[in-house]
Amino acid sequence: MKIIIIGATGTIGKHVVKALENGHEIIQVGSKSGDFQVDIADAASIKALFEKVGPFDAVVSTAGYGHFGPLADMTENEFRAGVDSKLMGQVNLVLIGQKYINPNGSFTLTSGTMGDDPIILGAAVSAINGAIDAFVRAAAIELKNGVRINAVGPDVVEESPGYFPFFPGHVPVSMHRVAQAYVKSVAGGQTGQNYKVL
Amino acid sequence: MKIIIIGATGTIGKHVVKALENGHEIIQVGSKSGDFQVDIADAASIKALFEKVGPFDAVVSTAGYGHFGPLADMTENEFRAGVDSKLMGQVNLVLIGQKYINPNGSFTLTSGTMGDDPIILGAAVSAINGAIDAFVRAAAIELKNGVRINAVGPDVVEESPGYFPFFPGHVPVSMHRVAQAYVKSVAGGQTGQNYKVL
Repeated sequence: MKIIIIGATGTIGKHVVKALENGHEIIQVGSKSGDFQVDIADAASIKALFEKVGPFDAVVSTAGYGHFGPLADMTENEFRAGVDSKLMGQVNLVLIGQKYINPNGSFTLTSGTMGDDPIILGAAVSAINGAIDAFVRAAAIELKNGVRINAVGPDVVEESPGYFPFFPGHVPVSMHRVAQAYVKSVAGGQTGQNYKVL
Repeated sequence: MKIIIIGATGTIGKHVVKALENGHEIIQVGSKSGDFQVDIADAASIKALFEKVGPFDAVVSTAGYGHFGPLADMTENEFRAGVDSKLMGQVNLVLIGQKYINPNGSFTLTSGTMGDDPIILGAAVSAINGAIDAFVRAAAIELKNGVRINAVGPDVVEESPGYFPFFPGHVPVSMHRVAQAYVKSVAGGQTGQNYKVL
């Protein structure tokens, strides 16, 4: 398969690359690094990426920013930063990518556990994760030509210790388990699933 | 209680007004009708509303637009219309309203059943409903002074027969049951709940 991995040099992305690179052609995409660059908050940049890469079998997105901060003084712009990046960025990968993806291909987006299991400071990110999870369930029943879509929702990951204090009682998940959830989505047969990694 | 009902003259809103008007002071708000007007897609308009109304005990939102249409040719702008209205509009009611609401007050937002139970043509609305449901769960653990927040998620309602063909196998829900879900949120004690009306 030809697999586009967006956020390929990120904390999660680099493990997804390693987990999938045997036997597949991997196109590594980053905001500044990788084989190609994309700004996922910019639909024109996404379209340009797909034009340059040509037909592909899978897109894996491990990219997307969301704002962490107290609800009490959260601003619309802080909330919207994540809407534009992690939500609309990943939605646009699908809205635009469906025109380029090969039959029986797949989209794998990244949400998280906070949509169902919120933390203090996380209201904006929770909303975005909830939107991604629901979008995946809905898009799955409309994608054509056997194209599938799933979301991977990792809890706080072991390689992000800076986040641990904000996730009390959460047991950090191994990068191996996280990467395998993406493998399950790309190489498996399911669609419309939210693979939580807990 | 002084209760602000946004979308008060709409299909659902008018029944919520009827269900709550005994024993409460109801402030009816619409986009063009009602005691006050608001454009929920405009944060400045929301702020002006709260300034004019003064302190209150509850906000009920039954307002918000979302785009219905095929995923195959859905545009970013179609998707974003609902993000700006039903998602950011309702989120802004909370982000801004938390500065005006009385202690032990409540916010009640509207989502739907499509976040969990999608229909063809509904991917954008599903995503927005999923975002609202998750936002409510997350905001509930941060709101101060005993302020609560819930979402009501009605299935297709009996007074919207124009929607029935798009909801095959859904049994339209009575306006009475829908209105009572809002009453449960406003007059009950729970927070962080998604009251699905099925």
